[in-house]
Amino acid sequence: MNSFGRLFRVSIFGESHGQGVGIVIDGSPAGIPLHPEDFLKDLKRRLPGTPGTTSRQEPDYPEIKSGVLENRTTGAPILIYFRNTDCRAEDYEEQKNLPRPGHADLVAFYKFGGFNDFRGGGHFSGRLTVALVAAGVVAKKIISPAQVEAELLEAGGSRDIQKAVDRAIEEKDSVGGIVECRAKPLPPGLGEPFFDSVESLISHLVFAIPGIKGVEFGDGFACSQMKGSECNDPIISKAGKTLTNHAGGINGGITNGNELVVRAAVKPTPSIPRPQRTMNLRTGEEKVLRLSGRHDTCIALRVPVVLEAAVAIVLADLMLIAQKIPLVWRKI
Amino acid sequence: MNSFGRLFRVSIFGESHGQGVGIVIDGSPAGIPLHPEDFLKDLKRRLPGTPGTTSRQEPDYPEIKSGVLENRTTGAPILIYFRNTDCRAEDYEEQKNLPRPGHADLVAFYKFGGFNDFRGGGHFSGRLTVALVAAGVVAKKIISPAQVEAELLEAGGSRDIQKAVDRAIEEKDSVGGIVECRAKPLPPGLGEPFFDSVESLISHLVFAIPGIKGVEFGDGFACSQMKGSECNDPIISKAGKTLTNHAGGINGGITNGNELVVRAAVKPTPSIPRPQRTMNLRTGEEKVLRLSGRHDTCIALRVPVVLEAAVAIVLADLMLIAQKIPLVWRKI
Amino acid sequence: MNSFGRLFRVSIFGESHGQGVGIVIDGSPAGIPLHPEDFLKDLKRRLPGTPGTTSRQEPDYPEIKSGVLENRTTGAPILIYFRNTDCRAEDYEEQKNLPRPGHADLVAFYKFGGFNDFRGGGHFSGRLTVALVAAGVVAKKIISPAQVEAELLEAGGSRDIQKAVDRAIEEKDSVGGIVECRAKPLPPGLGEPFFDSVESLISHLVFAIPGIKGVEFGDGFACSQMKGSECNDPIISKAGKTLTNHAGGINGGITNGNELVVRAAVKPTPSIPRPQRTMNLRTGEEKVLRLSGRHDTCIALRVPVVLEAAVAIVLADLMLIAQKIPLVWRKI
Amino acid sequence: MNSFGRLFRVSIFGESHGQGVGIVIDGSPAGIPLHPEDFLKDLKRRLPGTPGTTSRQEPDYPEIKSGVLENRTTGAPILIYFRNTDCRAEDYEEQKNLPRPGHADLVAFYKFGGFNDFRGGGHFSGRLTVALVAAGVVAKKIISPAQVEAELLEAGGSRDIQKAVDRAIEEKDSVGGIVECRAKPLPPGLGEPFFDSVESLISHLVFAIPGIKGVEFGDGFACSQMKGSECNDPIISKAGKTLTNHAGGINGGITNGNELVVRAAVKPTPSIPRPQRTMNLRTGEEKVLRLSGRHDTCIALRVPVVLEAAVAIVLADLMLIAQKIPLVWRKI
Repeated sequence: MNSFGRLFRVSIFGESHGQGVGIVIDGSPAGIPLHPEDFLKDLKRRLPGTPGTTSRQEPDYPEIKSGVLENRTTGAPILIYFRNTDCRAEDYEEQKNLPRPGHADLVAFYKFGGFNDFRGGGHFSGRLTVALVAAGVVAKKIISPAQVEAELLEAGGSRDIQKAVDRAIEEKDSVGGIVECRAKPLPPGLGEPFFDSVESLISHLVFAIPGIKGVEFGDGFACSQMKGSECNDPIISKAGKTLTNHAGGINGGITNGNELVVRAAVKPTPSIPRPQRTMNLRTGEEKVLRLSGRHDTCIALRVPVVLEAAVAIVLADLMLIAQKIPLVWRKI
Repeated sequence: MNSFGRLFRVSIFGESHGQGVGIVIDGSPAGIPLHPEDFLKDLKRRLPGTPGTTSRQEPDYPEIKSGVLENRTTGAPILIYFRNTDCRAEDYEEQKNLPRPGHADLVAFYKFGGFNDFRGGGHFSGRLTVALVAAGVVAKKIISPAQVEAELLEAGGSRDIQKAVDRAIEEKDSVGGIVECRAKPLPPGLGEPFFDSVESLISHLVFAIPGIKGVEFGDGFACSQMKGSECNDPIISKAGKTLTNHAGGINGGITNGNELVVRAAVKPTPSIPRPQRTMNLRTGEEKVLRLSGRHDTCIALRVPVVLEAAVAIVLADLMLIAQKIPLVWRKI
Repeated sequence: MNSFGRLFRVSIFGESHGQGVGIVIDGSPAGIPLHPEDFLKDLKRRLPGTPGTTSRQEPDYPEIKSGVLENRTTGAPILIYFRNTDCRAEDYEEQKNLPRPGHADLVAFYKFGGFNDFRGGGHFSGRLTVALVAAGVVAKKIISPAQVEAELLEAGGSRDIQKAVDRAIEEKDSVGGIVECRAKPLPPGLGEPFFDSVESLISHLVFAIPGIKGVEFGDGFACSQMKGSECNDPIISKAGKTLTNHAGGINGGITNGNELVVRAAVKPTPSIPRPQRTMNLRTGEEKVLRLSGRHDTCIALRVPVVLEAAVAIVLADLMLIAQKIPLVWRKI
Repeated sequence: MNSFGRLFRVSIFGESHGQGVGIVIDGSPAGIPLHPEDFLKDLKRRLPGTPGTTSRQEPDYPEIKSGVLENRTTGAPILIYFRNTDCRAEDYEEQKNLPRPGHADLVAFYKFGGFNDFRGGGHFSGRLTVALVAAGVVAKKIISPAQVEAELLEAGGSRDIQKAVDRAIEEKDSVGGIVECRAKPLPPGLGEPFFDSVESLISHLVFAIPGIKGVEFGDGFACSQMKGSECNDPIISKAGKTLTNHAGGINGGITNGNELVVRAAVKPTPSIPRPQRTMNLRTGEEKVLRLSGRHDTCIALRVPVVLEAAVAIVLADLMLIAQKIPLVWRKI
């Protein structure tokens, strides 16, 4: 399904080289101040522009088409829409039957019997994350004063991120990275015991971001190498404050009031300038793929604000479920 | 919520030291042969008994209370119930107000205002995974001939798993591990483009298993250190077969027909014999916790069959959604 | 699906002549006093015993198997189970292939390929409403001080209900009826604008009760014959109080603070002593069906408490969504 | 929630006098021919234009913004958008605090704390049904060759519909009606045993249509006055064909293969030219409401095609769940 959430629910739509992309946000409390300008800071963080990002230029101005009156949310569903303006669908015509390795091209072809929009990945494109970022802006307002902040920790295994990207550009290759997101202050008690653990919900949404291949909380995979006496966080206040935070702010699937910490592994962009081995999907002929199109060398550079959005969306839902957020904002 | 799934839906209930635990399985096709004996092999794999596992002894015989007639599923919801027989609720009475570090005790207290069943973690206990394993047995039948197999790759960072566990026992400590699960053959096309990617759904369910702190697919976190030319899997057949499988059988959130590979990081059991620092939840007094109760030194030893169940449950749901499974089994 | 609700969610299971029936209640606030005795009054109202009801005798004692500790809800899922004790599965053996007209026998056979539990309707039986009544008891506690009360208005078109039933018994026939349910006091603002209107949700659950063929709110079908000037309820207080209540307490799908009024049309029990025309499902042979088994002459006599349960379950969910109910009960 | 459905899922948004209204359709099979012209016939049936309908004129041309490529569905979410062009928001400014009796004005004010879009009912307006009709057009294609057809049976209690409407116009009043919808041929076995009965799902969606106060299936409320021997439909073929169809094609909540029959009671339009009693929501002052704005005298005239859409949307979902529809259309 292209929708997610219980009380704060988002439904995403659109294609990379179609008319546009967007998101319907259902369940937002009424009365929240919301203006198109409020989105620009986060949207800009997702925009390409630095070396290592695509040369495609989209203004990404959010059109709020419903759910807002006089710059306040009304409580009705909010549709935020982004027109595509810098499409080059023709870049993809000759690759139509040549699936890019590591991309959704092949699976989309099989899943939808060849009717899928193949242009630039269509509905599978990273372009849709612009809509997620927009929903994240609304979510961040809802969960305020809690703050969600993400950063790129490393690229290609190196903390010298720019160097790793530069080398990949030089080698006509691409490179992955690790993005970390932290959220605080959070009330204890968010999340549900079993299937709706905080980790379950956040990982669900984070793995929806194209290119993510791993998600971990707190010390994550490193926990597997630790002893209980190292990994357990001593409790030092009645309210649940712990001396260390190996758990990343989550015990038993529920927030414990400490900082929430989640990391995501981003794979290298599959679209690379180097020639690659593929097959013609209709004829079965072996082919060497030489990509035209405009692509990111390191998509991880643009992931932090998307990861923030995913985490904020889940937190908004959980805080509404836990009745930590009023359904009607006070009039200011 | 304590339920999960769209067409194949499970609802879990029960407590560690209450009357029992169980699961309602809704949406199973009709006509599947199902007998209590069918569960025993997987249930036995989850049972303790080897060094490093708890001394609690539960027979874990599944009572099928609905949805089955003459050893065939009827299409109605299947309730599978496990009585608790070897409870020692009194082990927990004196720890009632002393949350175990790394455990759900504290968050359960705050979330449910002190009304939670505190005995051995109550509803948050790993005991509930017996119900998940039972649902997994049904799911495995549904997705057959696809096979799901998991194993413990390492404990405490070491491939010599028994040695790592023995040392932890000796040190009155506990140890984590990494479990890997593989599934094949799978049809290409399972999963949905955005929020219901295969990774989203599997991670959702895997993070519901107590003690999991990280989930990765294919090369996972290692992808973040790779170049696109290394990470991309060359396509070598029209049907989607790839030369390598760094993607773990998933592109764009959709199965590509290659083997599905997922790994989970299991943290060390938080309940350890060593004294630990905690607080009395009601008085705020600092306390040293000395645990009685019977606990696993390495819970990861018992996770493989639980991880298989989680993966099989998601695959059963996705294969029903993709119409890869008939809703009525042929009469044999 | 055999489950319903967003925050207060019920999952039903069981068969008429199997081991038992029951319900899992997920999302109940913690701390609500709950004892098996609390269920008896409503369960008794559903029991047969008066002329016009079946001679099957079930004690219907609720076994609370999870989610309650020391007679308080813990916040974890509550399983309430009813054993079947007075089964006579053999009554149904010879009718196995002879679908009762007006019953689910035929559709169950086709839907589940003949694997369905055919004994007394199996999972389709009115027996399952005992589980719904149990969930209703929990829901009523949650929504208190709001009260939900239903009564049988007429049977066979007559207000002299007993007379209508007696005649049907005499004629070896059965008879339908109309049940009305009222709820108050309710806060204004429950329900959602479009797909989750209060009418949508209540009718959804009411039509799940076996035998219901019509549902209306306020003046319902009579509205279709009215003029706007007659049907509109003049607003006489700022809080939404109206002079009349033709709307049944609902405008635009949302409660307006006036009494909620819903009526359900119950069809006559399809199982009647008279011979009826049917077909052998396997051979296609025409047959005359002469029913053994024990059946109600007027099932509508037993519907009021079931209708109350359905309405209370929806209201509990809506009041939790609208944050009108605390998630943790105060300790008394 | 403003979304509905399990596999075929619609999410609605928009306001009467905002920028526009629309719907996201998720889960449509790929490859279905879809062109804006395909919508015009049904959209035109919903348009006003005859006496008794509003003078507001909207071209209602569907903008397909995603999910369609070269006039075929791609399998990705389909957004269909309708711009509002003939708004007169100023008609509503002076009524802003004067709730129209029988309308959602008052409940919207309370539910959303006065932040709701009050102009012409905002998100609660019948204007949104244009989006439902659009989704219905897609659903009708999916369920073909099954046909869904609705008609207005009576208005103001009279079969001479035009006369009833004319009298209401003359009296500066409004009038209700009854709309009936029939669907065939349908396979037996659609729907689920308990909470997702066909009646549950259809009534859920039908009660979402503004102005509906009653829903019945087959003989509906008349069943309550019948005897079992009259109401039961004799089974005359192995495939489930019945001699009569009092059940309206549904037994035990499941389609039995006979024609599905549902009727909806439409209340008289609450907006009438006559003066009405109301209150100023902010001051509590009693007021006489004299409506400007353009309204329908008999909204029931425009309901048939909306009812068809609701029924078709549910059937599309149920037929996908029952695997009666291929997920990929054959290329023609």
